[in-house]
Amino acid sequence: MSDERVEIIKEKIGTYPDFPKPGILFRDIFSVLSDPPSFEILIKLMEERIRKLCPEFDVILGLESRGFVLGAPLALALNKPFVPMRKKGKLPGKLKQVTYTLEYGTDVFEVQENSIKKGQTVVIVDDLLATGGTMKAACDLVSSLSGKVALCLVVIELNELKGRDKVKAPLEVIVKY
Amino acid sequence: MSDERVEIIKEKIGTYPDFPKPGILFRDIFSVLSDPPSFEILIKLMEERIRKLCPEFDVILGLESRGFVLGAPLALALNKPFVPMRKKGKLPGKLKQVTYTLEYGTDVFEVQENSIKKGQTVVIVDDLLATGGTMKAACDLVSSLSGKVALCLVVIELNELKGRDKVKAPLEVIVKY
Repeated sequence: MSDERVEIIKEKIGTYPDFPKPGILFRDIFSVLSDPPSFEILIKLMEERIRKLCPEFDVILGLESRGFVLGAPLALALNKPFVPMRKKGKLPGKLKQVTYTLEYGTDVFEVQENSIKKGQTVVIVDDLLATGGTMKAACDLVSSLSGKVALCLVVIELNELKGRDKVKAPLEVIVKY
Repeated sequence: MSDERVEIIKEKIGTYPDFPKPGILFRDIFSVLSDPPSFEILIKLMEERIRKLCPEFDVILGLESRGFVLGAPLALALNKPFVPMRKKGKLPGKLKQVTYTLEYGTDVFEVQENSIKKGQTVVIVDDLLATGGTMKAACDLVSSLSGKVALCLVVIELNELKGRDKVKAPLEVIVKY
């Protein structure tokens, strides 16, 4: 983590106390994206990590919706298909679903069935790893399509929430708090 | 529209009858994004249109959430800030809101207040222009921040819904149905 580019990103990440509810310190990547040199650095860093840790893979899976703003440029840079995981009801066609139980209820995530083929390797991209629930759901969806998660890549990990424990696939992080 | 690249994109756009509800023919850009050469062509086409129609501008505003997968790569390609417009409750910090009345109720959209400054010119990016409600809301939000909409750029226009009539700013479209 001696890369000074990581420090540039860390400095640009916005911090908002008590959002979305009291007691939560929200880390906002959009303040990185609104600064063109920082956004470029961030995508370059993520691209390098993927190339290093995972030189061969088939699909980028971006998680709704902050994973979209990172996954789409990465898919272009790496010349790979971009596939979205969305909340229930937003994707058309034949879908694979996974239901994930959260503290306050359940969430259902979906991927288009034909978007990940049997045996394909997948890099999952999101902005943040907090409790790890969404990332676990994404890994489960890839498995249910007989794909293999090659790498889970997030910009920010909130260490104290121990989301890492839920993720069985290799996990790579740019900035830790 | 004699550009054969437009035909490539048109052919790749997915079509789903009766989604999200009966009678609606849904046009899906994600099938373009899952084909790397097509995604690259699409972003190149959009970049060219912006450079031609709007050589000077300040900010790319991407509309949640399919506008994110297009707006983010365009912001990188054009070296401009990427700013999101989101549905209520998803953005932290000081926000500007606009309430838009739809057929079945109201939707509230938000932009971070400091993300568009007085007098800045904005290119708004989304996947689809249907009834035009979301695009009108985005234009109203930019105006409420004393910004100016230089261009509204969408991949798909559904002509028969006449969304174009609601958009007072210059509107550019890649594929029309």
